Amino acid sequence: MRPMTPLAHTALAELTTPALLLDRTVLERNCDAMAQRAARHGVALRPHLKTSKSAEVARVATRGHSGAITVSTVAEVDYFARYGFLDLTYAVGISASKVDALHRVQRLHGARVNLLADCVEAVRAVAARARALGASFGLLIEVDTGGGRGGVAPDDEEALRAIAAEVQRSGSLTLAGVLTHAGHSYHADGLESIRAIAEAERAGAVRAAECLRAAVFTVDIVSVGATPTAVCAERLDGVTEMRPGVYTFFDLDQAARGICGIEDIALSVLATVIGHNPRSRRVLIDAGALALSKDESAAEFRDGLGFGLVCRVDGTAPLPGLRVAELHQEHGLVASGGDGHGDSDDDLRAMFEALPIGSRVRILPHHACMTAAPYDRYHVVQGTGASVHAVWGKALGWRPA
Amino acid sequence: MRPMTPLAHTALAELTTPALLLDRTVLERNCDAMAQRAARHGVALRPHLKTSKSAEVARVATRGHSGAITVSTVAEVDYFARYGFLDLTYAVGISASKVDALHRVQRLHGARVNLLADCVEAVRAVAARARALGASFGLLIEVDTGGGRGGVAPDDEEALRAIAAEVQRSGSLTLAGVLTHAGHSYHADGLESIRAIAEAERAGAVRAAECLRAAVFTVDIVSVGATPTAVCAERLDGVTEMRPGVYTFFDLDQAARGICGIEDIALSVLATVIGHNPRSRRVLIDAGALALSKDESAAEFRDGLGFGLVCRVDGTAPLPGLRVAELHQEHGLVASGGDGHGDSDDDLRAMFEALPIGSRVRILPHHACMTAAPYDRYHVVQGTGASVHAVWGKALGWRPA
Repeated sequence: MRPMTPLAHTALAELTTPALLLDRTVLERNCDAMAQRAARHGVALRPHLKTSKSAEVARVATRGHSGAITVSTVAEVDYFARYGFLDLTYAVGISASKVDALHRVQRLHGARVNLLADCVEAVRAVAARARALGASFGLLIEVDTGGGRGGVAPDDEEALRAIAAEVQRSGSLTLAGVLTHAGHSYHADGLESIRAIAEAERAGAVRAAECLRAAVFTVDIVSVGATPTAVCAERLDGVTEMRPGVYTFFDLDQAARGICGIEDIALSVLATVIGHNPRSRRVLIDAGALALSKDESAAEFRDGLGFGLVCRVDGTAPLPGLRVAELHQEHGLVASGGDGHGDSDDDLRAMFEALPIGSRVRILPHHACMTAAPYDRYHVVQGTGASVHAVWGKALGWRPA
Repeated sequence: MRPMTPLAHTALAELTTPALLLDRTVLERNCDAMAQRAARHGVALRPHLKTSKSAEVARVATRGHSGAITVSTVAEVDYFARYGFLDLTYAVGISASKVDALHRVQRLHGARVNLLADCVEAVRAVAARARALGASFGLLIEVDTGGGRGGVAPDDEEALRAIAAEVQRSGSLTLAGVLTHAGHSYHADGLESIRAIAEAERAGAVRAAECLRAAVFTVDIVSVGATPTAVCAERLDGVTEMRPGVYTFFDLDQAARGICGIEDIALSVLATVIGHNPRSRRVLIDAGALALSKDESAAEFRDGLGFGLVCRVDGTAPLPGLRVAELHQEHGLVASGGDGHGDSDDDLRAMFEALPIGSRVRILPHHACMTAAPYDRYHVVQGTGASVHAVWGKALGWRPA
């Protein structure tokens, strides 16, 4: 179990780069705002920890709540249970091959893991493996409210009831409720269209729950949520919980559509300037495709973001016109203005002067979940301070420890 | 230090998915072919281990050679030195902030690390830090032969000689030679155009070396290489070593241009089928954007590859028309035929039958370096065998252990 070392006052200038920075003040503000939103709607908040994969972040995100969380890998189930998060929804369609590892976590830590399935075959195979182990799990039926990923159609009464009946006769699974994720809200521009998706997400989940209840199944959990729909939903009648995740950190993809402001982005990548190339008109930094990810989700909504925006090391607003224009495995190439080739020699000189060799910058990422994943820790900062207040560990990869 | 556990005859069916599979037979064939190519050109092979980050792979890639390797992070320098690889070129522009960690590796393991720089400022800062520590390093001058990433222009005699002079008077650095990387060969289609880039890479590196020698500097190493140019180069006169990397595993990006065949791809991701969605006409697998990476490099050259091709679990040729059409964090969505929406109901039924719930597939990745990076191990297989012969550890992330 990775310790969470307090590391008072290490300077940002001393960190090995690339490194992940997490602004605690912004994180706390984001988490408080979402908690208030859930309270206003009268639903529980079961934050999705796939974004941060960090127990310290989970503590902030569940402050004043039950401690129930959502995760996306077996490694996360194991990691969070070790840190005392014992009410877990593993929100990816389950397969029998993962049951042994999940059973081990339940037994070792006294955790309760809710599984997800959308067909009778999966339920049957998972139930058989659980029975063989003497294990028991809660099971949520996944409903597809437009994302086209996993899930039964909300009006497919036959399929919903067949799955619920299979769960009921399994002897090893208990029907916990229904779950949907409006992942397509990530591709919707404009708050109006996201509001419509949020309502379809709500209505679909509630309809599926009602269909099951009409067939005398007990449905305790009606779970919805992605950050865009959680932020934009006007009503959540009939819903019992929401599961947003990326709101903890926010990112350019959310900011590009007004789901948050640039100042709400808590996560950045600290990088060092390692070169100036006057011919290609680029500044080189040591954060490349692995350190930032090749995700450029926000390009769907806004131009000029490259693979991330460049900020001064103190985290103040992005430097105008500067963005990571190209990525290689361990190199990022920063350009200024236009397409980075059409800007004037004065612009180029100004960029080289703003980013001298050996200096440091912060890069705001497109998609916080993708950027944070491969790192093993967060360096926690506060506002424009130049020191690291703490180091927070995190899960990574797919295998339990 | 991660042990390299032999793990005889674990079945592929028992692995936690997603998992990285590495076909040892193909790996060895790829490594032997590149070693022969280097020998034919009369140059040393200093394989780039950024692709695999694995000591066992490094052993295969340096078989019969000096053991000299190339790496891309401080974590890799540290990892490979622990496994006895003591002649290392760290082929990313160096900054003073990394000198302490590299010095520690040199001292602890008796390693020799060559650094890379393309400007006087970087050399001055790095040399000062090295002097303060009592450290010494070899230094390679980076030359830009068209990639527009790092490097001095090959004909910029003034800059080349100024850097060499700064190295010479540093007291802590020794001029080791010149290095170039024709990274733009990854974007060139057709073997003819790659051949031209290979010749420009060779000529530029040699020109820079000659310029320095004419000013009475000693230049031992003239280093070139990316896999495409290493495979296509017709002559390497004046060059002393090549540094290809991805050839160890190969991938769809290389296959799409005929640099290798599909049968030469040694790396794949093992995934489990977790759902069928008849409405979106997709099969869901548990390998998503993190497990495969969002890299789609080969799309520059060939349509229909999605985010990876789908093969049966025994690794035989890709299933016709099937590819990973969409990625979410932990979900991959497999489509068949056309755009995955236009295909017939018969095609859809055939796909669902070929990929039943709970079954396993292998996915061939676009870009092996990006796909392998976030995993902590390889499961080594051979040909179409269904068992894992060994587990090989690897470095990951950026921080030394």
